[in-house]
Amino acid sequence: MVERLVVIGGDAAGMSAASQARRRRGPDELEIVAVERGDFTSYSACGIPYHVGGDVPELESLIARDPETFRRDYAIDVRTRTEAVEIDLDGRRVRLRELPDGPESWLGFDLLMVATGAVPRRPALPGADARGVFGVQTLNDGVALDSYIARERPARAVVVGGGYIGLEMAEAMIRRGLKVDLLEAGEQPMGTLDPDMGALVAGAVRGLGVGVHTGERVTGFDTSGDRVTAVRTAAAVYPADLVVLGLGVRPNGALAEAAGLTVGETGGVVVDRRMRTTAPGVWSAGDCVETFHRITGRPVAIALGTHANKQGRVAGIGIGGGYATFPGVIGTAVTKVCDIQVGRTGLNEREAERAGFAYVTASVASTTRAGYYPGATEMTTKVIAERRSGRLLGAQIVGEEGAAKRIDALAIAVWNEMTVEEMTGLDLGYAPPYSPVWDPVLITARKAAERLEAG
Amino acid sequence: MVERLVVIGGDAAGMSAASQARRRRGPDELEIVAVERGDFTSYSACGIPYHVGGDVPELESLIARDPETFRRDYAIDVRTRTEAVEIDLDGRRVRLRELPDGPESWLGFDLLMVATGAVPRRPALPGADARGVFGVQTLNDGVALDSYIARERPARAVVVGGGYIGLEMAEAMIRRGLKVDLLEAGEQPMGTLDPDMGALVAGAVRGLGVGVHTGERVTGFDTSGDRVTAVRTAAAVYPADLVVLGLGVRPNGALAEAAGLTVGETGGVVVDRRMRTTAPGVWSAGDCVETFHRITGRPVAIALGTHANKQGRVAGIGIGGGYATFPGVIGTAVTKVCDIQVGRTGLNEREAERAGFAYVTASVASTTRAGYYPGATEMTTKVIAERRSGRLLGAQIVGEEGAAKRIDALAIAVWNEMTVEEMTGLDLGYAPPYSPVWDPVLITARKAAERLEAG
Repeated sequence: MVERLVVIGGDAAGMSAASQARRRRGPDELEIVAVERGDFTSYSACGIPYHVGGDVPELESLIARDPETFRRDYAIDVRTRTEAVEIDLDGRRVRLRELPDGPESWLGFDLLMVATGAVPRRPALPGADARGVFGVQTLNDGVALDSYIARERPARAVVVGGGYIGLEMAEAMIRRGLKVDLLEAGEQPMGTLDPDMGALVAGAVRGLGVGVHTGERVTGFDTSGDRVTAVRTAAAVYPADLVVLGLGVRPNGALAEAAGLTVGETGGVVVDRRMRTTAPGVWSAGDCVETFHRITGRPVAIALGTHANKQGRVAGIGIGGGYATFPGVIGTAVTKVCDIQVGRTGLNEREAERAGFAYVTASVASTTRAGYYPGATEMTTKVIAERRSGRLLGAQIVGEEGAAKRIDALAIAVWNEMTVEEMTGLDLGYAPPYSPVWDPVLITARKAAERLEAG
Repeated sequence: MVERLVVIGGDAAGMSAASQARRRRGPDELEIVAVERGDFTSYSACGIPYHVGGDVPELESLIARDPETFRRDYAIDVRTRTEAVEIDLDGRRVRLRELPDGPESWLGFDLLMVATGAVPRRPALPGADARGVFGVQTLNDGVALDSYIARERPARAVVVGGGYIGLEMAEAMIRRGLKVDLLEAGEQPMGTLDPDMGALVAGAVRGLGVGVHTGERVTGFDTSGDRVTAVRTAAAVYPADLVVLGLGVRPNGALAEAAGLTVGETGGVVVDRRMRTTAPGVWSAGDCVETFHRITGRPVAIALGTHANKQGRVAGIGIGGGYATFPGVIGTAVTKVCDIQVGRTGLNEREAERAGFAYVTASVASTTRAGYYPGATEMTTKVIAERRSGRLLGAQIVGEEGAAKRIDALAIAVWNEMTVEEMTGLDLGYAPPYSPVWDPVLITARKAAERLEAG
């Protein structure tokens, strides 16, 4: 008997799962139907800011595999512009609607994969849905924003929220010739860093010509007709022909929740380590689920392509009859704002505090290469270590060329629960073009170890 | 009572130890005399090729702290151009000679630090000591080579040995306008890599214009008067106005051995984890000692500034009355040959075999950034995993910009004895400017894990 797998959502998690399932079960065993609301499959949403900014001229290059490839090479029936509007768990079927307002129909499934992604947080304020206000979550969002800039030639953009997407979009729009203001409710942009590290990023963003306004919480949007004209805060009015929402995203768990699947405190679908939901034969992965943080043990929802791909693969292996698990996350992330590279992993100070850890911190400014080697630039490394055990809880890096991916070394140290004292003895790569003879990781760990010893 | 510490050798290990000892014991407690055969203290020997090649114009910038700084700021009596020619352990004294042929005198010590470094391997062949044949181990060697090139204007250089120093010097001399031939006895240059990875490096070196001759073992040096004119192998004669020996170095344990200190099979001074030799109150660190390899458990002597600094610090803490240990090494190293970056850690195939491990390997060619992101270049990652346990034994990376320091992540995975299977779930930094969405580390580990599963 041929079973049918229905996949809801055609990006990283959904299509990774579909491909893995196909790899293990051929078309004579498993029929696969994937429905996608937008026009694209398996694309890099993280690449949108670089397309808007002009670094990646061809939108198509953001697409890893298009629907036709999945149909031809994977025998997966991909249906774009098709939305799943209801899951009927008892009836083992999903109700589909052809977009924008085409006919609806029911499609039965034996196995279901829910990969509905995330939705940008939109402030519940008047005007937040006006024309000219954009989220940047799907490739369709990117297309819409891009053509809005080309068509309407906006002069002034306001970015609401100074997280990864906000900062990347601020840079992209500066490069498109817009005047850009960035409104951040917190003390510094890049709130996943501690404020002392975020301040280093804010400096770079200001240097780019972006007006960075911290402590500014949006209270409303002015509109003229259906179109945004300004963003209001308690303190000021920022004129805007274009607004980008960079307030982060929340898991899109609505469809799953309505069907009776358990959704957790983060709003994400609850899954086990094999990416199984609370309903038999129903799997979920990617931005719509909540996973767990390996240090705090708490549920977290972190929308990131790398997790979505890994989780989707784990789900697909399970759907295909194999066994794999997703081991949780530690919050590693990297980004780039103009020439400034940023990396973070594990807990920042606020997260450590919330999780109940007593901790020490240590920061060291060093160079990326031997001081005498051409092109050596400054970088700052910060570590956070648990006071009692000395265990590395988290780390942050802000610097120039060659700085960001150094966070991987610290991420693996966090993963393995290394103490900062043990880290001081690590055998890391040394050569003048790549590092001072005392690697920044080593000296920062040493400084933290000395603080722990001093008590 | 004021004790006296005598430090033999004024580079990384010796002066790190002296500084640490001073930090813990003031001049009223501990007198410190450091003797150094050359003119310089605390310099970066690893920087010499970049000085010769012109990247680092000022020789002085390779010096971290000069003798005057140690005298003034650390109250350390540094005596340059002074050689320790004998250690009298029973008499607790060292015999010193002022160079080149000045008077000799005895200097008593309570504590002794032996940091005599390494000496370049010189083939025991006629002509190997001729004028124009250079090692590149001390800053004085670098000065001599540099001024030889400026003064004698050699046209043709032969580099004997294709290790780190050999390749770096080959590039440096190409940049100085010399014609360069590189003779390597093995199958590929960069013998600390496996041949398949070394081949990638050889290609880059050839592209630079270096004549790379593999399988060529030197049988002699032709001379005219006291001066080298050619290098002979079984197969050919390579004319040479200048020869650089890049055959690696061996620990300079002669002085210690003559005094009765135990020297191991590697030729290095035997020390414990606190860097204590077999004689009470006598410490040793840096290129002259043997340490242990954390994976094989075997003694190794690896001449590298980063180890020398760490070991010197550990010795200095001990001399100062504190407690610290050196945890051994895993053979991490990075280098650069023109635009090609190289990193390695742990065991290569030959080392794994010698150590008795059954293993699998996996190599993956990927890009350094998302494929669509500007500046994405190719890199190759290879891992070696123990067949039975799946434990990562070693890894190698060859690629362009941004490739080399990624080895640190793999080094920390080796350090923590991670299995390749566990590594497939690692939470590493992902953003299009830094990595494909499947990080090369993850996919290479996955490929190895699949091979293990396939058996």
